[in-house]
Amino acid sequence: MRIDIITVLPEMIEGFFNCSIMKRAQKKGLAEIHIHNLRDYTTDKHHKVDDYPFGGCAGMVMKIEPIERCINSLKAEREYDEVIFTTPDGEQFDQKMANKLSLAGNLIILCGHFKGIDYRIREHFITKEISIGDYVLTGGELAASVIADAIVRIIPGVISDEQSALSDSFQDNLLAPPVYTRPADYNGWKVPDVLLSGHEAKIKEWELSQSIERTKRLRPDLLE
Amino acid sequence: MRIDIITVLPEMIEGFFNCSIMKRAQKKGLAEIHIHNLRDYTTDKHHKVDDYPFGGCAGMVMKIEPIERCINSLKAEREYDEVIFTTPDGEQFDQKMANKLSLAGNLIILCGHFKGIDYRIREHFITKEISIGDYVLTGGELAASVIADAIVRIIPGVISDEQSALSDSFQDNLLAPPVYTRPADYNGWKVPDVLLSGHEAKIKEWELSQSIERTKRLRPDLLE
Repeated sequence: MRIDIITVLPEMIEGFFNCSIMKRAQKKGLAEIHIHNLRDYTTDKHHKVDDYPFGGCAGMVMKIEPIERCINSLKAEREYDEVIFTTPDGEQFDQKMANKLSLAGNLIILCGHFKGIDYRIREHFITKEISIGDYVLTGGELAASVIADAIVRIIPGVISDEQSALSDSFQDNLLAPPVYTRPADYNGWKVPDVLLSGHEAKIKEWELSQSIERTKRLRPDLLE
Repeated sequence: MRIDIITVLPEMIEGFFNCSIMKRAQKKGLAEIHIHNLRDYTTDKHHKVDDYPFGGCAGMVMKIEPIERCINSLKAEREYDEVIFTTPDGEQFDQKMANKLSLAGNLIILCGHFKGIDYRIREHFITKEISIGDYVLTGGELAASVIADAIVRIIPGVISDEQSALSDSFQDNLLAPPVYTRPADYNGWKVPDVLLSGHEAKIKEWELSQSIERTKRLRPDLLE
């Protein structure tokens, strides 16, 4: 899979993509992440990517031209499954969407910044608008990182078997059970006896019952 | 406001906090962000922060000791409003929670990593569990960044008046209206006439009607 991220602030997210699972996925050749500085696609000497909004509202708006130039230059080189824009009024991102997008070949993610992007970009270039939650962020850079992380980590081979994503929350519409490590007794706070029993079937039964109880209590909507 | 972030991977998010609005908020003295490497709070020579889970499930679990040591050393220096843990089974983060948390004085955010953290930490040290959405990420680092960004940008004085957060999506339970910038005609794609009219009252009316129409169509739940 290849993900091209278009942003006015590459330095905001470069560290993230050179780290941990994202680094491993790229080293293994399972994912390619390319971060593009939108200013490289301007033609004026000031590398202007934004301008005042029509109608006199507050803030600056990202211009069409550099974004069109960047998207078109990427599209000239390969086919893309989706051109994604991250925005709080987009479709809600969830694990199902992550699973689906992880099967894609090539994705573009455009990060908005400032007050927003010229709406004509959304109408003519974007194929999918995604929101990572009901809150407003400084820009789309963190949202793009969240989407890329959730997608890349479930590509087969990226995380090792012993970290299997199959037992994560949401993959079976259940929240994960509690986990514990040593010491078994810490200041009198004890690990549940069953986990120390060595009785595999009972442990599995306990984990499932914990998952169901936690989901019923915390997220009954997942069971509907 | 002061936010202390506890993580095993500081390099994953340091770039983000040295950039853009977060940098400006810190320069202006309106927010202090401190990132703590959990390994600095270990006492063994291998700086071990995780261990195998009881019960034989897959993955590694973050140990109690270094986390307790780090949280206690922070608490010894000042009072904290909340000790937050980011987890997909936490309370859903939204703009209302961001508004509320932006009034806090001091916050700790603990980032989980690996398969999870020893559940006794959640029971005894955490005062608030937050989920940024229904998806699983490699770790809590991006979630902590999302929370910090959403909170810090709405502290009065952080973003300038002309970028006012008051016209953002969700602040009045409405999605933001479309925005446009020059040129008014791009390849025949035109900016709505009303925005070029200079008639302020009509522009405000159009923006509100667009906000209502978009909210009804895309997020009717916000109007309930």
